[in-house]
Formats: sequence, structure tokens, C-alpha cells
Amino acid sequence: MTHRIALIPGDGIGLEVTPAGVRCLEALAQRPGLNFDFTEFPYSCEYYARHGTMMPEDGIEQLRGHDAILLGAVGYPGVPDHVSLWGLLLPIRREFQQYVNLRPVRLLRGLTSALRDRGPEDINYLVVRENNEGEYSEIGGRLYDGLPEAMAVQATVITRKGSERILDYAFRTAQSRPRRRLAYATKSNGIKHSMPFWDEQVAAMAPQYPDIAVEQYHVDILAANLVTHPDWFDVVVGTNLFGDILSDLGPATAGGIGVAPSANINPDPAIPSMFEPVHGSAPDIAGQNIANPIAMIWTVVMMLEDLGEQSAADDLMGALEAVTGEGKVLTRDLGGNAGTTEFTDRVIAELTG
Amino acid sequence: MTHRIALIPGDGIGLEVTPAGVRCLEALAQRPGLNFDFTEFPYSCEYYARHGTMMPEDGIEQLRGHDAILLGAVGYPGVPDHVSLWGLLLPIRREFQQYVNLRPVRLLRGLTSALRDRGPEDINYLVVRENNEGEYSEIGGRLYDGLPEAMAVQATVITRKGSERILDYAFRTAQSRPRRRLAYATKSNGIKHSMPFWDEQVAAMAPQYPDIAVEQYHVDILAANLVTHPDWFDVVVGTNLFGDILSDLGPATAGGIGVAPSANINPDPAIPSMFEPVHGSAPDIAGQNIANPIAMIWTVVMMLEDLGEQSAADDLMGALEAVTGEGKVLTRDLGGNAGTTEFTDRVIAELTG
Ligand SMILES: CC(C)[C@H](C(=O)O)[C@@H](O)C(=O)O
Ligand SMILES: CC(C)[C@H](C(=O)O)[C@@H](O)C(=O)O
Repeated sequence: MTHRIALIPGDGIGLEVTPAGVRCLEALAQRPGLNFDFTEFPYSCEYYARHGTMMPEDGIEQLRGHDAILLGAVGYPGVPDHVSLWGLLLPIRREFQQYVNLRPVRLLRGLTSALRDRGPEDINYLVVRENNEGEYSEIGGRLYDGLPEAMAVQATVITRKGSERILDYAFRTAQSRPRRRLAYATKSNGIKHSMPFWDEQVAAMAPQYPDIAVEQYHVDILAANLVTHPDWFDVVVGTNLFGDILSDLGPATAGGIGVAPSANINPDPAIPSMFEPVHGSAPDIAGQNIANPIAMIWTVVMMLEDLGEQSAADDLMGALEAVTGEGKVLTRDLGGNAGTTEFTDRVIAELTG
Repeated sequence: MTHRIALIPGDGIGLEVTPAGVRCLEALAQRPGLNFDFTEFPYSCEYYARHGTMMPEDGIEQLRGHDAILLGAVGYPGVPDHVSLWGLLLPIRREFQQYVNLRPVRLLRGLTSALRDRGPEDINYLVVRENNEGEYSEIGGRLYDGLPEAMAVQATVITRKGSERILDYAFRTAQSRPRRRLAYATKSNGIKHSMPFWDEQVAAMAPQYPDIAVEQYHVDILAANLVTHPDWFDVVVGTNLFGDILSDLGPATAGGIGVAPSANINPDPAIPSMFEPVHGSAPDIAGQNIANPIAMIWTVVMMLEDLGEQSAADDLMGALEAVTGEGKVLTRDLGGNAGTTEFTDRVIAELTG
């Protein structure tokens, strides 16, 4: 079975961690029956500097024929976010209707939590983020721009269809986990229209999943509880913005942003999903071989799972956690002094040795 | 000088912590020249059960003649949030144009942070939250309700005037602090209309405050950094929703929500500001004399400061922190076994003894 993988290393440390991920995949491809066909796409701020767009006009079409997209990171100082992100990352998520953004938060063996007295048994939940609509809608504009009366209006759009598909995914994910708990983030006590509608969608779906314990949290309290009671959480579902915030906050308690993986999923196998570390391009540390490749390697694990390669995924995750658990070879952000390649070498040695 | 204080104990533990705050004020009023004239308003879910509204039609008018409003907490199981909050808390904030919500996050002496290896010297910042507009606008509605095509649209409205006044307050607050740093929360990389407008207001104002170091953070990263690097922050300013989230997250790292104070301020002295603990009515622990009165006592300190009674404020804060620092009399949420009244007694003894 050959999996066609589109690689978009992007910018900054994306150019260092993507090869780390690819090397793990190549090591796994030594096994009989597992093959990858990689095609690299140079879409990036670099590309923008040369062509004036982040990707060619048919960029999405070029990506479409692949089984998965593996993205490093995009963004570069001087290129405004609305160019780098709205010209690449967000269109991929939206045009392929990757409506699930899945972000595991788990303290890997050997890593130290920023929370007092918390170990791997306390921090193990999954943030399921709606990834296509909500607070990231493009609807809105300005009135009286430049005048003292100026204002901006931004629409949040939550649809029943969009809510149902992400909530359904979240409920089913909760069913696959031993604790079968689903916490949902809302803010219906303060935000009058979108959030009560969201709550109603949860309430309407819950009876179909009587085996799941559903708990409502206003997002402010939820954020607080991820710090004070991380052990309460199993699956956490939120709208685009709330999922974004909670899935950066979670990793901050579990080894930092350098270890956090993510998957942008369209469950339809005919449409490629995109896998990317949560971290950005980190221009301040780029090019020095010091970036932490854990987020990318874990992201590759998520990609393997999505491609149906569960045993390869398990083996890679096992190798990764064996290395962190040993605690000898770690990058600087985790208090070690290994480089990106050295850490990756160690994982591959563990995997193949 | 007699300060006319409107008391709204509200519901749940509001009925226990408000008297604790009042007792501290009465103890201070033993001093020559400091007097309070308290008027109690029964506005609450209890009131709603009897009258069908959270407050009488002229409720706002009745409050107007006071120098400050001290509120315990509102909310009761069975009374929907849109009744209890939109019928009382949010109208007071908005009709009195209390556009600043000020929420100090500081680890008091003797308390233990939920963060590993963090002490009082690491956690000391002030969240300045826009309190009147933004994501809490009442503009929006539904289309196709009840049908598969249903959707809700919610408008976020950010005005130049609303941004300028809160940012100006935040910059001036930063000037009053030794570190003179102002971090602002945004999400202009994902939210296309409102957030770039907000960023522009910050950029336009910054040159007027050349002594302030301004730093932009996307709200997801900011939330993560409040956990991993709380010591980076001095003054943090955000829109209504972002300020709400960050000011619950901050206290979670600094002793929990039972200690977090807040002030809803209209800087015009002719209009009352409202002072309320960040915590809610906590029906699960209400009526047992176990609620932590620290948030309320600290809130009273903020009220005294606002009323110009700085030395009384300093003394009360000193007494509070002497008691926490000693660590002998603490409520359950902080690992002690003192009741609400016992803790308050101890603070008053410290204050007057
Ligand atoms: C109760 C709710 C409407 C309120 C808010 O979001 O403003 C609360 O969370 C707060 O922070 O005071
Ligand atoms: C870069 C930004 C637009 C993006 C988002 O908010 O979705 C990022 O924070 C993420 O979480 O992937």
C-alpha cells in the first residue's frame, strides 16, 4: 500500500521538523507493505516573496490527489498573517472541509508539567476543535473607518450542520475512550445568540449517546479548570476560537507548545486531511537545529492512524515515548541539549533497533 | 466623608461573602473621618422568583445615587443565565458604562500556586478587560431555526471610542507600575475584521505612551504563556471575551477563583462603579459557611481605592495578606478548615488589633 503524502515544509522551523517527520516515515517504510510517495510543495512565505501568493492558483487542486498533507509551519516576519495564513493554512482547512481539528493533550513519559504535582496520569485529554466556521467567519467589515465614530463588525456564524458534524465526531471519540466523558466549551451566559444555539445542538445530540457523560463549561471556567483540575477532562469540544485557545493552553501544561500535535481531518477518505504541529514557524530559533521535533513526530503518528496504519503509528509513538521517558536525549525547550536531528536519530534508532 | 454604598448580596455564597466584606468596612469605619452608608438591594434570583424580574424597572435608577455598588454573586440553579445575568449584572455594567473590568492576578503571600515552582514574585499582573462591547454585543439572531439549515449569527462590535477608552486606561495603568509593560490579547491572525481593527487602535495609541513596552500576543499563545511564563506579564489588556477568559485563567494559577477580585469601573466619579468577586454564586457550597471570603475582601480593597480611601485600602490588604501569609486560618479551598466567618474574624482582628 502506497500512501501519497503532500509535504508542505513551509517556513522557519517547519523546514527542520518536516524532514524529521519524513525520516521517521522512511524508517517505517523499511517494513514490507508500507510505502510512502512524497511530493514536496514549496508553498510558503518564501514562495510568496517570489510569486506574490502563498501558493499557485491551482494549489488546492494540486494537493487534492493526495492521501494526506503534512505541513511544517507557515509564517515569516514581514509577511502579514492575513497573507501567510489566509493564503494557505485557512484555505486548506476550509476548502477540503477539514472540519475536525484534533489536538491530543497528554503529558508524555519523562516530561515535566508546568503544573505543580501533576504527572502523566493527570493530563490526558483530547481537544476536538471545530475547524471551519464559527468565530473565524470572513463576514464583517467597517463603518466610518478613519473617523472617531469608526467601528468594526465581525460575524460569528454557527450552523446546525457545522455543529452537528463536529459534535458527532466528539461524541464518537468519547465513546472510544475508557472514561466516556465529553466536556463542551460555551459562553452562553455572556454571548447571546451564537452560544445558546451551540448549547442547543449539544442538548439535541446528547440523547443519541446515552453512554457519554456530557458536561457544560463556560470557556472561562474551563480554561481555569484545565490548570486546576486537568484530571477532570477526557474529550473537550469547542468552537473554532474556543478550541484554538484551549488547545494551546492544554499543551502549556504538558511540556509546552514544542510537543503538541494536531490533525485537521475530513473523515471522508476521498479528501486529504492535513497534519501539522500546533507550533508556528518560530523564526527566532529557525535554522539552528534546536527546534523540538516531538510535535512533528507525534503529528506523523496521527497521520499514520488516519491512514489506517495503526501498528506503525503505535510503534512510532512507542519509540517517541521511550526516548522521552528515558530523558537522556531532549531538546533545549525541555531542558536537554540535543539538536533536532540528534533527537530524531534517537527515535529512529529506538524504532528500528 | 460618608460613602454611600449599594449592596447587592445576590444569591448563593453572595449572601455569605457580602456580609464578610461589610464587616471589614464597618471595622474600618471605627476610624475618624471614614463612614459608610449602606443600602441593601435584594436583586437576585430569589427576587426573580417573587417578581418575575431580577430587579424592579427603576432598579438602575435606584442604584444611580450611590458612590459604589458592592455585589456578591448572582445565579441560581433553575434560573437560566440569560435571566440572571442579562437581567442584572450585564445591564449594570453597561448602563453605567463601567467600561473597565479590572482584575488583579497576584499570588498572595502564603498561598500555593497551581504552577510548579512559582511563588508570589512570579505572578503579579493586572488584567484590564473591556467590559461593555465586543463579543458580548446583543446583535445577532437565527435563520431557519428548527430546520436542518438552521444557523445563528452573532455580531462582535468593536468601536474606536470603546477601544480607545479601555486602551487608554490600560496604558495609564501600565504607567503606574514599575515594569511599564502592556501585553495586549488579539487574534488578528484568525479573526479577520474585528481583531485587525483592535490591533490598529493599539498601534495608533502606542506612540502617545513611549515609556510603555507594548507586546502583541494572540490570545491562544497568551493563555499558554500565562501558564509557562507568568512572570512575563505586567498589565494585560483584552476585549470583553478575551479579558473574561484570561482573568479566570490567571486566578487559577494564583490560589483559585475563590481569591480573585474585580472592579467594574466607570472612571467618572459621578457614576457608580461596581465591585464584585470573580467567582459565582456556587450553589453547591452555599449556606455552609465554607465559602472563601478572600475574593470579596480584596474586592472591598479595590472599592476603597476607587473611593479615594487609599490608606484604608492598604491597611485592609495588609491585614488580609498578613492572615494568608501566616497560613494558619484558611478556608477549605486553600487546604485549611476555617469557615467564612472565622477567616473574616481573623482579618478584622489583624486590622483592628
Ligand atoms: C457571568 C458572566 C456573564 C460573566 C462574564 O462573562 O462577564 C462572568 O464570567 C464574569 O467574568 O464576570
Ligand atoms: C495561525 C492561526 C490562524 C491558527 C488558528 O488560530 O487556527 C493557529 O493558532 C492554530 O491553532 O492552528
